[in-house]
Amino acid sequence: MMGENTIILASGSPRRKQLLTQIRLKFQVVPSGVIEDNHLNLPPEAFVEHWGRKKAKYVALDFPDNLVIGADTIVVLNGHIFGKPRNKNEGYRMLRKLSGRTHEVITGVALIWKKREIDITFNARTNVTFRKIPKDYISYYLDSYNTLDKAGSYGIQDWFSVWVEKIDGCYYNVMGFPLSTFYQYYLSLNNLQDIR
Amino acid sequence: MMGENTIILASGSPRRKQLLTQIRLKFQVVPSGVIEDNHLNLPPEAFVEHWGRKKAKYVALDFPDNLVIGADTIVVLNGHIFGKPRNKNEGYRMLRKLSGRTHEVITGVALIWKKREIDITFNARTNVTFRKIPKDYISYYLDSYNTLDKAGSYGIQDWFSVWVEKIDGCYYNVMGFPLSTFYQYYLSLNNLQDIR
Repeated sequence: MMGENTIILASGSPRRKQLLTQIRLKFQVVPSGVIEDNHLNLPPEAFVEHWGRKKAKYVALDFPDNLVIGADTIVVLNGHIFGKPRNKNEGYRMLRKLSGRTHEVITGVALIWKKREIDITFNARTNVTFRKIPKDYISYYLDSYNTLDKAGSYGIQDWFSVWVEKIDGCYYNVMGFPLSTFYQYYLSLNNLQDIR
Repeated sequence: MMGENTIILASGSPRRKQLLTQIRLKFQVVPSGVIEDNHLNLPPEAFVEHWGRKKAKYVALDFPDNLVIGADTIVVLNGHIFGKPRNKNEGYRMLRKLSGRTHEVITGVALIWKKREIDITFNARTNVTFRKIPKDYISYYLDSYNTLDKAGSYGIQDWFSVWVEKIDGCYYNVMGFPLSTFYQYYLSLNNLQDIR
């Protein structure tokens, strides 16, 4: 049983769970089970908002009394969307393309609370600049870390951080959830749960 | 006893320890005990390099055979240097000044290895933009978190992250150590310790 004040994170991502815990939100995780289809032909911002919404809407069917948070993160280079790599080879190709360049990380977030007729979607964008990464370091990384659950095949919060020259925007957005932008929307929802 | 390959971090900062662990460096912590004097009248970049060097040099006296890493981080707003607040009131005044504005975080790093005549100093700069923070949230933050050990009186990695609209530069530099820039220098030191 969930109380009406319980917030639901419709995502199985351990990074999103960690980030919402960092800002002291109390929530339950209910993964949506929605399978993403990277072939959907939408512009990047619409793409992540679509999938963020789809995850939130799906879970909100079962929890109409609770605020449900859905999110989706992608990497975009020259207009091409990089989702999670299907295997190590695809991860290698992604990192070779991202090496020495600036790409964009976009997260779409949906806040759906049926009972209160709240239905908000937004996205956040961060530019990330990689240094040139020698091939053998890319291979080492893919052999040593699991990147199959990460858009663009890297985790900015792990060893890979040595190759991130700079970012422009929200760091947490690159990890998978734009904390600061989310918090502004959250505060507007009539002090649902005071997380100071 | 320390082997010659042991790297020494001349800093007691738990964030720096965490960051060097994140990139798999093997090291020992030997705090320098150097007391910083914020009244030293130097430009910001020279200021942090001076103190980073001073910490590394002091520890290197005892460990001439080892690579010693020193670092110092400050916050700069309109040319004024904000170090660690001496008390909660000073922390409050700092955060009030930083609220709604963009400041710069600068870390000076020194790499001193006497035996190999290596003596390198560099600095890294990151712009950080805060949203406007209501006064009661500032008070809540200072009451709930220890900020006396943090330049500018905030930790970008804790609850305070909800007020950080964006950064431009290296995120880890804001935490206290510019991982990516450091790693480039590190790689140039003839593969001292392969931390892949």
